[in-house]
Amino acid sequence: MFKINDNYLKLPGSYLFSTIAKKVNAFEAANPDKTVIRLGIGDVTQPLAPVIIDALHGAVDEMGKAETFHGYAPDLGYEFLRTAIAKNDYADRGCEIAADEIFVSDGAKCDSGNIQEIFSVDNKIAVCDPVYPVYVDTNVMAGRTGTYDPKTEMWSDVIYMPCTAETDFAPELPKETPDLIYLCFPNNPTGATITKAQLQEWVDYANKVGAVIIYDAAYEAYISEADVPHTIFECEGARTCAIELKSFSKNAGFTGTRLGYTVIPKDLKCGDVMLHSLWARRHGTKYNGAPYIQQRAGEAVYSPEGKEQLAKQVAYYMNNAKVIKEGLQEAGYTVSGGVNAPYIWLKTPDGMTSWEFFDYLLANANVVGTPGSGFGPSGEGYFRLTAFGTYENTVAALERIKKM
Amino acid sequence: MFKINDNYLKLPGSYLFSTIAKKVNAFEAANPDKTVIRLGIGDVTQPLAPVIIDALHGAVDEMGKAETFHGYAPDLGYEFLRTAIAKNDYADRGCEIAADEIFVSDGAKCDSGNIQEIFSVDNKIAVCDPVYPVYVDTNVMAGRTGTYDPKTEMWSDVIYMPCTAETDFAPELPKETPDLIYLCFPNNPTGATITKAQLQEWVDYANKVGAVIIYDAAYEAYISEADVPHTIFECEGARTCAIELKSFSKNAGFTGTRLGYTVIPKDLKCGDVMLHSLWARRHGTKYNGAPYIQQRAGEAVYSPEGKEQLAKQVAYYMNNAKVIKEGLQEAGYTVSGGVNAPYIWLKTPDGMTSWEFFDYLLANANVVGTPGSGFGPSGEGYFRLTAFGTYENTVAALERIKKM
Repeated sequence: MFKINDNYLKLPGSYLFSTIAKKVNAFEAANPDKTVIRLGIGDVTQPLAPVIIDALHGAVDEMGKAETFHGYAPDLGYEFLRTAIAKNDYADRGCEIAADEIFVSDGAKCDSGNIQEIFSVDNKIAVCDPVYPVYVDTNVMAGRTGTYDPKTEMWSDVIYMPCTAETDFAPELPKETPDLIYLCFPNNPTGATITKAQLQEWVDYANKVGAVIIYDAAYEAYISEADVPHTIFECEGARTCAIELKSFSKNAGFTGTRLGYTVIPKDLKCGDVMLHSLWARRHGTKYNGAPYIQQRAGEAVYSPEGKEQLAKQVAYYMNNAKVIKEGLQEAGYTVSGGVNAPYIWLKTPDGMTSWEFFDYLLANANVVGTPGSGFGPSGEGYFRLTAFGTYENTVAALERIKKM
Repeated sequence: MFKINDNYLKLPGSYLFSTIAKKVNAFEAANPDKTVIRLGIGDVTQPLAPVIIDALHGAVDEMGKAETFHGYAPDLGYEFLRTAIAKNDYADRGCEIAADEIFVSDGAKCDSGNIQEIFSVDNKIAVCDPVYPVYVDTNVMAGRTGTYDPKTEMWSDVIYMPCTAETDFAPELPKETPDLIYLCFPNNPTGATITKAQLQEWVDYANKVGAVIIYDAAYEAYISEADVPHTIFECEGARTCAIELKSFSKNAGFTGTRLGYTVIPKDLKCGDVMLHSLWARRHGTKYNGAPYIQQRAGEAVYSPEGKEQLAKQVAYYMNNAKVIKEGLQEAGYTVSGGVNAPYIWLKTPDGMTSWEFFDYLLANANVVGTPGSGFGPSGEGYFRLTAFGTYENTVAALERIKKM
């Protein structure tokens, strides 16, 4: 008689966004005259830039002709895209990453979920708290996290690194030594960043204790300040301890188009074994390459027109972030994020819990955000608003909040 | 100090296609005057049908306008595609599969590699021999297969079901009871099929012993005979024991476009737990949905024009299959497959090994095929040719083989 992977049963229900949806639906049903504005989700709203649309149409045309038709893509990605990434995202920043150290995929969520597979189940992970839930959940599914305590909302075998106002929303080096360290900067959900000097400390630490840093740089395009690193490979020694995850979702609006990549330097080894070889074997065995038309669209992201058009798109969202941040500050809130990230993180007023503030905001301003406690226990008492709405909705939402 | 997943190191090198490539390159370098014809790979060569191209262009246009832009897709697929699949691939064949039992993905290779994750590592798998290598390799990575014997090329904890001329290339019910049974019909590499009555025996067996059948129906569109089942859900009782994997790669030429789906009926349970819930949780946690534009292209596959255009494409390849099969028979070979599948499976002549015949065919006809031994020990003495080339190349290859 077959048996299931019991680790799946350990996962607590994923209630955050379904609870939000239920509450919003109930509110709208009871208040048909009110217009609810959603600043809760991390999904983009601006259409794909013209240069991307042109690239997609061009590639579709190629697929319609025998002479230019493309079948199976190379498992690890087309050379034209890997070369463009290596040049623009690494060489131009002075980082030594070769095209064949880049693995093209259909997005950073898949990669951040699958990357743990190439490591032993005995490895211990360390995560920031609050954090993007995929890191922990995929390690639960693999049986790497021990038992769950519903009271503390923590797993016995996970090292949590609190990121609160007291630490300026940055993690401190953990007391217990981890094997795998998940870091995400600019951060989802707090919008916080760390400086290159701070990240260098993490790289030095990982090299010292023999840990691997899984660095999620999905929001890199939103960095506006000079001393914030765009990639972990700006740090010396990162080639022997770091894997970097990148996405086209937020810099180019590919949430529904799907494209991402992972960098594993060939110097990152366990004994004689390159992690690069293991990930290549996984890609070759369990994946069949990202679609040709999406890879051509990814190439267009790096063209001069692409860079210009996408800088405007990022600026559009970052203007929303400014509207939110300054509006909240005017209204007397304690706010962080929003400078190098599309996320604004606010302290709930008057000691409200995250969910109490959610209800209060929905009832009084008809605005939807995300309770910080949904991202981990240290998110309690915080709340996330996102800059991915339209400008008009963002301005209207802040007017309402200021009037509350 | 971090450790890797040691199971990856147990995998023997994947030398089949790289060895083929090396041998072909060496031959071409030594014989610059000869034109090599490749009938070895399972990749399509015909361009996407006009109706697919139109659907892709239409969806790309939608992505370029704010009012019709699509961000994150539903994890499990858009309703419009799931409904089209449920109607055309199941309801129209009298099979009871609901739209919400269909999980849209970026292809059957990913699904066939990932599906084992929701099962216990203690489960024992049974596979046909020869077989598509992904089934075994992904179970090796998960630690489910025991130790490898390089002499027999077999894993200690895998149940092999030989499919040779003696069994008419169909597997027999195994003596040892498996937990997971991988079946692929029409078969890659042999091109064999089983009748509905034969498949019903497997369904009855799985229900009796409490096993799950993972049914790979990627080549379903090539079925031409009446008593060959198009889906395992034509069999009574399949809803309590079967998972079906489907692909758009071979019926619509999506090898480089990427789209597939998996069906898990809600009646398939381990105790109280629906496997449907586990796969939904995996999709929601480790996947971010198939691209909107590809899902619109998938929808077009089921339109009246789509069905007409794609039937012609399949007929084109099946005409190649006929050319290959009849040509080989004329030349005196013992041949199977090619009637309900784009693969032709031939017995190597004069007791040659699969690789000896590869070398002989390359040297004398300048034609490339795939040695059967590359798909498993019972493939030794056989050879695979595919119908996915152009008609002109296929005819030319067979003329050469007949002259050998």
